[in-house]
Amino acid sequence: MLLYLSARSPNPRRVQFFLAEKGIEVPTQMVDIGAKAHWEDDFKAISPRRTVPALVLDDGTAITESIAICRYFEAVQPEPNLFGAGAREIALVEMWQRRAEIELMQAVQFAFRHVHPAMAEREVPQVKDWGEANKAKVLDFLAFLDGELAGREFLALDRFTVADITAIVAIDFMRAARITAPETLTHLARWRSAVSARPAAAAGA
Amino acid sequence: MLLYLSARSPNPRRVQFFLAEKGIEVPTQMVDIGAKAHWEDDFKAISPRRTVPALVLDDGTAITESIAICRYFEAVQPEPNLFGAGAREIALVEMWQRRAEIELMQAVQFAFRHVHPAMAEREVPQVKDWGEANKAKVLDFLAFLDGELAGREFLALDRFTVADITAIVAIDFMRAARITAPETLTHLARWRSAVSARPAAAAGA
Repeated sequence: MLLYLSARSPNPRRVQFFLAEKGIEVPTQMVDIGAKAHWEDDFKAISPRRTVPALVLDDGTAITESIAICRYFEAVQPEPNLFGAGAREIALVEMWQRRAEIELMQAVQFAFRHVHPAMAEREVPQVKDWGEANKAKVLDFLAFLDGELAGREFLALDRFTVADITAIVAIDFMRAARITAPETLTHLARWRSAVSARPAAAAGA
Repeated sequence: MLLYLSARSPNPRRVQFFLAEKGIEVPTQMVDIGAKAHWEDDFKAISPRRTVPALVLDDGTAITESIAICRYFEAVQPEPNLFGAGAREIALVEMWQRRAEIELMQAVQFAFRHVHPAMAEREVPQVKDWGEANKAKVLDFLAFLDGELAGREFLALDRFTVADITAIVAIDFMRAARITAPETLTHLARWRSAVSARPAAAAGA
């Protein structure tokens, strides 16, 4: 088994955070995105969409998509449970994982990739109006999330799940997109402090 | 239990297709998107992001996000299995479900919502350059998918899974976004015919 990662990247960090919560250690190899190593043929054979992270199993099966990699390890080692136990929890965690991913993480990434000059070569075409539009979408979602966190300790359940990992990684990545959470969102700030204080939060950060 | 749906909508169709494959029947209620019923306070209390479909459980728990609803029913009634069995299959299905969703379904929806004049009121701001850019992304993914389907009967495994549901619903929705799959993609065409011929494909179509 070999896990391909890249430095200072939000999606690899999700997997690293998840594995640290599980207490799972796997052999890793860094992919140098800056040197375009993900565009080389040997990596494309593993990750045809050239995305990092990627996990190669002992039978040669290659898994890309950070949440797919996390689900692999959840199935192999169910505890501590991070994707929900029982139908109701499983549905709630998936709902919040998806909200955090679609309305927060993807929006932050659009705001970064379509606005930052350094991304002009990788995001073709770069559509600045789309990047700017996503800054407002991020702020709208953060306000919604703050209201939800007024009544619950974590995003999906009253315990930490993979949805919290996606959300904190996205929020930490807001800095690259030059988006700042309003200080009035006090429930969000309380949750952010608690999640950031977990030992696993340092993995890949 | 009550499942909220809307007519001729890709996300509700995913759940309807999934339930038909499972042979599960649940009480449903239609939400009239055209009349903006999803913006009314009583629906917002169920689906705070105003998305359809939404599932309300007997204990009052509200689940939104089509794939979260599908996962609820997979946990309640595991057979026929549509999300993979065992760690390797679970990871492969999630990888392909995510690729089909992010690179195909979301791209088709961007191409529709950011270009079609009828969506100008609902998609604010409408960014035409972003919509147009996604047409090329859809065609690039379809060519990739065609190559994958040369060696496999379905997207994720050699049997039908939820990833095929997301892909066929997205491809059928391409018509609204005025995108046409090139006739040269013969493996894609073979897969599309096979999936479209399944009795469950008619649910919500």
